[in-house]
Amino acid sequence: MSSILLNCMGTVTDHSEYSEPEVLFKNPQIHVKNPHLDTMEEDILYHFNLGTKTHNLPEMFGDVKFVCVGGSANRMKSFAQFILQELALPGNMDNVTDICEGTDRYSMYKVGPVLSISHGMGVPSISIMLHELIKLLHHARCIDFILFRIGTSGGVGLEPGTVVVTDKAVDCFFRAQFEQVVLGKVVTRSTELDVGVSKELLQCSSELDDVPTVIGNTMCTSDFYEGQGRLDGALCSFSTEDKLEYLRKAYNTGVRNIEMESTVFAAMCRACAIKAAVVCVTLLNRFDGDQISTPHDVLVEYQQRPQVLVAHFIKKRLGLIV
Amino acid sequence: MSSILLNCMGTVTDHSEYSEPEVLFKNPQIHVKNPHLDTMEEDILYHFNLGTKTHNLPEMFGDVKFVCVGGSANRMKSFAQFILQELALPGNMDNVTDICEGTDRYSMYKVGPVLSISHGMGVPSISIMLHELIKLLHHARCIDFILFRIGTSGGVGLEPGTVVVTDKAVDCFFRAQFEQVVLGKVVTRSTELDVGVSKELLQCSSELDDVPTVIGNTMCTSDFYEGQGRLDGALCSFSTEDKLEYLRKAYNTGVRNIEMESTVFAAMCRACAIKAAVVCVTLLNRFDGDQISTPHDVLVEYQQRPQVLVAHFIKKRLGLIV
Repeated sequence: MSSILLNCMGTVTDHSEYSEPEVLFKNPQIHVKNPHLDTMEEDILYHFNLGTKTHNLPEMFGDVKFVCVGGSANRMKSFAQFILQELALPGNMDNVTDICEGTDRYSMYKVGPVLSISHGMGVPSISIMLHELIKLLHHARCIDFILFRIGTSGGVGLEPGTVVVTDKAVDCFFRAQFEQVVLGKVVTRSTELDVGVSKELLQCSSELDDVPTVIGNTMCTSDFYEGQGRLDGALCSFSTEDKLEYLRKAYNTGVRNIEMESTVFAAMCRACAIKAAVVCVTLLNRFDGDQISTPHDVLVEYQQRPQVLVAHFIKKRLGLIV
Repeated sequence: MSSILLNCMGTVTDHSEYSEPEVLFKNPQIHVKNPHLDTMEEDILYHFNLGTKTHNLPEMFGDVKFVCVGGSANRMKSFAQFILQELALPGNMDNVTDICEGTDRYSMYKVGPVLSISHGMGVPSISIMLHELIKLLHHARCIDFILFRIGTSGGVGLEPGTVVVTDKAVDCFFRAQFEQVVLGKVVTRSTELDVGVSKELLQCSSELDDVPTVIGNTMCTSDFYEGQGRLDGALCSFSTEDKLEYLRKAYNTGVRNIEMESTVFAAMCRACAIKAAVVCVTLLNRFDGDQISTPHDVLVEYQQRPQVLVAHFIKKRLGLIV
């Protein structure tokens, strides 16, 4: 399957993603990278409450061309309802129902060619969802789809409300990589995203009012408080100056926002040769503070900006806007 | 605040948890370890949609003595309703409403002295919740409470349905520690849990029918598929034999179940001198397979076992059972 190299640090570097995407694109319906799946009689997508024997996945999902994922279940429902309106699809907003109704782990909505799914908070939560989503799209024989993460984030040196389209997803050491422990060995994967999709999103933003957008690096952390240099957690052993120094270092390496899912999202999409983009709005400028004290209605408007931008992208791709 | 040592690997070891608990217990209402909190005019617990200026936290939560947290919002609501019955408290099951109604990040229910909160899946998701929970209990001036995680897990060499009370929470290298990156430096914290509470839980299990319980180590991973040696993810580059060898190694170090939150739960509770226990039921024996294919009604019964055990513990502590 993959060419695994053991380096002098005892760290395993998985170079498979550098060689395999081309092969996968020749056979575009195969996105999974797991030879065991072919031998399974049934695949239960446990956290979606879906399965290959209980559901006709090609019929349910075969026409999917755009998959949008985000942390909050309510937000992803609103997004599906918004897409229904934007694409002028038949049907009623109230009929946008949760496909994963039998479980509360994730919520999933489908409107026309658009799938909208919640992923909770943090790398482990989104990674469970991505494993099952990629298998779902594989079983459904979906081809040529694009995957977007639309989320919220803390801004680094940006006006609150700015949308950041991720150039590179970096870890808390500012490295464009994701470390995954597999059977007790560290496998390092690249987190580069699709440059073409990012540029197309930036072009889309220039055609919209009130969606200020930049391309920048996105730092992904495994903790919201200490891990992002916040002074307001239950634990904090550093000073305001320590915090600001860390944020300045991040800014100087190109980081413009901080969230908690982008590295594994980028790494898994790249490993499976899926075109993907991360589009997050900043809710505050971390140089100015840690607490999110912006009024609720302003936050709601901010959170709609990535949705408006991605909806515009989808409409252009579908030829609904020239 | 804390004595931070830099070891030869460039890793920072935070020894503060070894010296500070005693001090904290002398002043039992202070559980946070953050000097900045005292200087804040207001503390917005963003992911709970609660705050010190908008809510009277001492009035709302001051009598809390038992806090139970678990991944699923539905399950934590059921648990609150179950506790209402078990403690024979006044009120109707339908009136058990979500205190965090304004957000879908977490759900929170209070019945008498018991708080029941969902934490989503994975270390980052539970860590956000724990930061805000520990601050909430601090602001509410709660004292002498016990924190339980009641969850589900994969079993290692156990009959499905067995409840594991965690001795040590270990990482995917079988080390009883949790690594937290703070401002780009790795801080290592101990994950030892309260031995007295674990023993008391085991005693409780012996007084119950149908709650088979063992004490063992719990391995916490950041990935459900590759990270736990599953062969059925979207990515898998190892063989069945590789997987079984890893599980055998885990078993030989004392690991009896695998889940995704215990290390940070144990580390944060220990750092803040909070008595805590992890009580998870095993849904399958990982030596026998990876997919969770047990019938729904059997899974539901399994998931009630940690609830029944912790409810029994609470009733004994409250003197409702002699």
